[in-house]
Amino acid sequence: MAKIRLGILGGGADSLIGILHRVAANMFDQFEITGGVFDVKHEKSLQFGEKLQLDKSRVYKDLDHLIITEKQLPEDKRIEAVSILTPNFLHFPMAKKLLENGFNVICEKPLTTTYEEAKILNELQQRSNVIFAVTYTYTGYPMIRQMKTMIANGDIGKIQKVDVQYYQGWINPLIHDKEKRSATWRLDPEKSGISCCIGDIGTHAFNMAEFVTGMKVENILADLNYLYEDNPMDIDGTVLLRFQDNIKGVLRASQIATGEENNFTVQIYGDKGGLKWEQENPNYLYLLKEDQPLQVIKPGHGFLSEFSLEGIKLPPGHPEGIFDSMGNIYYGVAMAIRDKSKFDGAYPKLNDGLRGMNFIEKTVSSHKKGNVWIEMKD
Amino acid sequence: MAKIRLGILGGGADSLIGILHRVAANMFDQFEITGGVFDVKHEKSLQFGEKLQLDKSRVYKDLDHLIITEKQLPEDKRIEAVSILTPNFLHFPMAKKLLENGFNVICEKPLTTTYEEAKILNELQQRSNVIFAVTYTYTGYPMIRQMKTMIANGDIGKIQKVDVQYYQGWINPLIHDKEKRSATWRLDPEKSGISCCIGDIGTHAFNMAEFVTGMKVENILADLNYLYEDNPMDIDGTVLLRFQDNIKGVLRASQIATGEENNFTVQIYGDKGGLKWEQENPNYLYLLKEDQPLQVIKPGHGFLSEFSLEGIKLPPGHPEGIFDSMGNIYYGVAMAIRDKSKFDGAYPKLNDGLRGMNFIEKTVSSHKKGNVWIEMKD
Amino acid sequence: MAKIRLGILGGGADSLIGILHRVAANMFDQFEITGGVFDVKHEKSLQFGEKLQLDKSRVYKDLDHLIITEKQLPEDKRIEAVSILTPNFLHFPMAKKLLENGFNVICEKPLTTTYEEAKILNELQQRSNVIFAVTYTYTGYPMIRQMKTMIANGDIGKIQKVDVQYYQGWINPLIHDKEKRSATWRLDPEKSGISCCIGDIGTHAFNMAEFVTGMKVENILADLNYLYEDNPMDIDGTVLLRFQDNIKGVLRASQIATGEENNFTVQIYGDKGGLKWEQENPNYLYLLKEDQPLQVIKPGHGFLSEFSLEGIKLPPGHPEGIFDSMGNIYYGVAMAIRDKSKFDGAYPKLNDGLRGMNFIEKTVSSHKKGNVWIEMKD
Amino acid sequence: MAKIRLGILGGGADSLIGILHRVAANMFDQFEITGGVFDVKHEKSLQFGEKLQLDKSRVYKDLDHLIITEKQLPEDKRIEAVSILTPNFLHFPMAKKLLENGFNVICEKPLTTTYEEAKILNELQQRSNVIFAVTYTYTGYPMIRQMKTMIANGDIGKIQKVDVQYYQGWINPLIHDKEKRSATWRLDPEKSGISCCIGDIGTHAFNMAEFVTGMKVENILADLNYLYEDNPMDIDGTVLLRFQDNIKGVLRASQIATGEENNFTVQIYGDKGGLKWEQENPNYLYLLKEDQPLQVIKPGHGFLSEFSLEGIKLPPGHPEGIFDSMGNIYYGVAMAIRDKSKFDGAYPKLNDGLRGMNFIEKTVSSHKKGNVWIEMKD
Repeated sequence: MAKIRLGILGGGADSLIGILHRVAANMFDQFEITGGVFDVKHEKSLQFGEKLQLDKSRVYKDLDHLIITEKQLPEDKRIEAVSILTPNFLHFPMAKKLLENGFNVICEKPLTTTYEEAKILNELQQRSNVIFAVTYTYTGYPMIRQMKTMIANGDIGKIQKVDVQYYQGWINPLIHDKEKRSATWRLDPEKSGISCCIGDIGTHAFNMAEFVTGMKVENILADLNYLYEDNPMDIDGTVLLRFQDNIKGVLRASQIATGEENNFTVQIYGDKGGLKWEQENPNYLYLLKEDQPLQVIKPGHGFLSEFSLEGIKLPPGHPEGIFDSMGNIYYGVAMAIRDKSKFDGAYPKLNDGLRGMNFIEKTVSSHKKGNVWIEMKD
Repeated sequence: MAKIRLGILGGGADSLIGILHRVAANMFDQFEITGGVFDVKHEKSLQFGEKLQLDKSRVYKDLDHLIITEKQLPEDKRIEAVSILTPNFLHFPMAKKLLENGFNVICEKPLTTTYEEAKILNELQQRSNVIFAVTYTYTGYPMIRQMKTMIANGDIGKIQKVDVQYYQGWINPLIHDKEKRSATWRLDPEKSGISCCIGDIGTHAFNMAEFVTGMKVENILADLNYLYEDNPMDIDGTVLLRFQDNIKGVLRASQIATGEENNFTVQIYGDKGGLKWEQENPNYLYLLKEDQPLQVIKPGHGFLSEFSLEGIKLPPGHPEGIFDSMGNIYYGVAMAIRDKSKFDGAYPKLNDGLRGMNFIEKTVSSHKKGNVWIEMKD
Repeated sequence: MAKIRLGILGGGADSLIGILHRVAANMFDQFEITGGVFDVKHEKSLQFGEKLQLDKSRVYKDLDHLIITEKQLPEDKRIEAVSILTPNFLHFPMAKKLLENGFNVICEKPLTTTYEEAKILNELQQRSNVIFAVTYTYTGYPMIRQMKTMIANGDIGKIQKVDVQYYQGWINPLIHDKEKRSATWRLDPEKSGISCCIGDIGTHAFNMAEFVTGMKVENILADLNYLYEDNPMDIDGTVLLRFQDNIKGVLRASQIATGEENNFTVQIYGDKGGLKWEQENPNYLYLLKEDQPLQVIKPGHGFLSEFSLEGIKLPPGHPEGIFDSMGNIYYGVAMAIRDKSKFDGAYPKLNDGLRGMNFIEKTVSSHKKGNVWIEMKD
Repeated sequence: MAKIRLGILGGGADSLIGILHRVAANMFDQFEITGGVFDVKHEKSLQFGEKLQLDKSRVYKDLDHLIITEKQLPEDKRIEAVSILTPNFLHFPMAKKLLENGFNVICEKPLTTTYEEAKILNELQQRSNVIFAVTYTYTGYPMIRQMKTMIANGDIGKIQKVDVQYYQGWINPLIHDKEKRSATWRLDPEKSGISCCIGDIGTHAFNMAEFVTGMKVENILADLNYLYEDNPMDIDGTVLLRFQDNIKGVLRASQIATGEENNFTVQIYGDKGGLKWEQENPNYLYLLKEDQPLQVIKPGHGFLSEFSLEGIKLPPGHPEGIFDSMGNIYYGVAMAIRDKSKFDGAYPKLNDGLRGMNFIEKTVSSHKKGNVWIEMKD
């Protein structure tokens, strides 16, 4: 079966996440990186294309050139899917053009900078026939997939408590210095949208809570922290969650949890047990049962769900990491592109990105109205 | 120096915590258990006294007899301090009588069943000259003491985030069965006061947050969970905290976190670092600093604070547990009784119990008013 | 039931382990510390006795006075058991006198300084009717008891690999300085016997291996490390073990594992599973099964063995430590004293101390003969 | 810069490690998989080549055809390096041919089935000008590289104890069944060489001990376990190590540590501190110092060594795994191929494979001679 031809927007020499997407795309021998626009400066883009040994003619000046030229190529040469790895504010215009021109899209989160934009993309996709993934990377971890399957199978019974935490400390050295914070793009609403912490990591936690439980959040009440009056962007927050059937949860996110690296944890409790996971030790899933030993579930064993095992490439005891998680998402996208009817669960969808933008807007709104309950409905 | 003569109320053959208090009292050779009322049934009380090899005449029918008889004894024979280990609703009347009669008191938490009662005890103590401890047991752990000292010393700078969690799962097997829950005393407001989860474990978390940070909570917004409409008592809740200077925090407590045993964690982040601690592994204190290795601080080393080392009896590598934590509190009480002017920090005080009752009432009130902010001021 | 009257030799103001034994003795309300010789200097001994509020007349000048005087007291006043907490070389003469005079004995390890002495004590005990415990403290941990029961029950099948490690680093700062090492009593054969590392901690590991497996070591081959030619005492070593039925094992002990505190680990593998335990986290017992989740067994649950639960005083989630482990041993001794026929497994016996001395001598001998196999038979 | 053209021998549809090598080769955009012999059956090989979208003409019938055809291609089209992923007994003849024909080689371990063969390869390489790597995968982990640098920098002072453990349990279900064990190729000396456990995983531990310490083992004494008399291959063993300057160590390896997955641990102690690492949690390196907090060193921080940081692609908190470790080795090979004079340390060399074969033979020999000391010199 031929590899899927992949284009990349952004992700060049200065990018942190470019390598993550490239390795993920290559991991299962499903994609072939064919071209792209790796940098706003064409010269740097070309240099990067050379490093990847790409055909020079497929390294484009900008997205418009890419679209026009690729569409003129015969179908079996043409780029089929495009990954968007640019700063947030470019996601929307780029994704829109790609959708309008029939390319499959893999877009970094947050999907857009406003909920409104996300809704436009959503409508466009519904009228099209393309695959659109939003890279909520962490949902690709095998033990998260196992968690999702176990919850769906009733292993912990009816859910009665959802608790997600995403703590980082990276913004601490910037936030206390007025000059530094005005120079930080994530703290600039023009480039990042209306939220920093909730937009960047809170959405991961929100998406994960809905992904593993299979439930939808219906109402939220948020308490955000801006720390300084002249800082327009939240850098910490707690959000009370109400899921369907009045099931309660809580989401905590912070970028001022000094010293934390990427401490994303998921704790779900049902009436028959609990499940816990920590991103920094992604190969352990903890199953808690009343009056039973704590069980530590690890990847690669025959007793795991098919959905989890599909994401594992090596025998037990060979730790896989975040590359593998993203690799699993790319694999899901590849399977979906190859057979659009078949795979529904193996990659995060545009709708997940849409939910994320809804969440960001409602969260900021709840906070600004004085920490009141807001409905998540559209 | 003579040992301090200790009386005990409750804590007999059926008690879970009796042994904890007895071991703690004996641990540093400071107390001598002299008498008490171990059970409402005098016969069982006498049997238990025999097991402890107490003089039969000091095992009393009830508290009134204890007070009258002991006060007639010469000062150097008389019980000097009394531990109250009875169900919650007896704390207030017993503590009140003891205070009125000049006994030092060690009382289990929650201090009373209402804030009003706690205020009465507080006024009584202020007019008296006795020591009154409330056994927030976990504050006696050496690594919690180390955490408190480090924060006071500015090791993590100005605090910008307070996060406490207290998760248990024990009520899960009862809560879904109407009969079982009506038979559970902790779910009966008559016996427990107005709150189950916040009253029993939320107060521990609240006290700890104030203890280690040295800051006071000024406002709270609570979202409690009762799970069933006919259940009058919260069994889970999240409380948004606002400390002085608008510093934010969050407290989570649950008794339906199925499979959790006694998962009490404390995370405090400042602008220079973070400190984390977990009750189930009490001998590790984690210090997080930007771009430095994670430090795991363990008991007994010379570099620890005096306050921490005072609570350690053995060289590094010899794990101590919750007996030792309670032992440290009893030791603090002993030192305070011996020299009332000297020791101020080494045991939790009546005022901590008072704050706890304030917190319980305000939390329930915030929830019932629709999750609104409530001031903690009296 | 009356408490058992306990005398203590050593364990005074300068002692590290005195408090461990006193707390352990008090923990279950079984013993009453009645008297002893706490220090070679009578004045200091008396001071310490005062601190414990002992009757001055029971604080003796030396062991001979203790024996003579106590034997003249009526049986229901007399000290019934004596704990020996002195330096190693005093264990033998003291234990011998106590045995000869009918006292029950609790002796710190190593039992003696030579195997020969140990055999003499053993013969004495066999002709007497007293209880003689050797405080291999770690065997009192509830999860070690659970491990022993599970192995006996066949939970991990036939044993095929025994692995014990006891690593400390405390001697590192002394060993490289000739003056310091000549001033260290543990490095002085006169005071410590022929071995430092194997004698002090290797014996713990050896005893534990035999205790949890229920098997006897038959042959050993040792490679010891003295680091300096003029150092007469081993401070590190590896010992190949051969148990009955040619089952193999390995024991590693070190006092130059710099930075290690008290890192004693036990790993036992059978044909149906494995069990692992670490002293510094004594409340976790790990059960490994092929193609099953790792199980973390924690104290206090109903599914644990009776032998384990007997050593637990609080509900799950309340960590107990080394005081509790020693407390369990003292409790076992108390039960044995009260009914000598009944309890056989609940405390380490003189025979364990004898095995330990045999092990020490054979280990040094194997090393000195050029790392050859030596039989453990007498 | 053009990518390096890579051929692969083995690693086809039935291979476990094929994907590990392919992902590793692609990870840093340095290699382009160009052709190979993926299976002994040409048909299956062709199918696999198609999956990788290779030019059919570069999927060869066997190695001889590959060599002949590739050598006829112009230099800038020709395969430059070949990875050998076949069963052990094919390593030698294949590597020999490749060396004789001037190809760079990446060979799985163990290098050969006998020490003699390894010496032949070594001589061949010394007369040639090619790069020859042996994939001791674990040496590519960033925290192992950090360990090596820290030891070389003297951070733990002069080494005084080396301890490596490699425990697995996978052979347990086979070893007790005579039929199953005769059907296992790893237990067949014809296919695996003279050793199973030491040959397969003991060599990893041996190589790691020499890699991180920078010291050579000079003498060994081994005690192996075959469990059944008719089993010709060791499946467990302990090896006493003596490094230069009489520094002592111990290596333990097992395939009957039932329930263990891939539990490879490294503990090195010097006179100024200790360093510890566990393969199943490869992103933590533990630094132990006397009377200091335990330090947990994690990847990606600016304070790490250049050698470690070179192997990290993402910011702290994004766990990498074994793919990344192998990726780093492939990157080292690429750098060496591009500039043969420059890189000396960044990949395991043929000489490491030679040492490994020496170790295997001496270990089996020591055991068979009755557990005696044997010199590692050639």
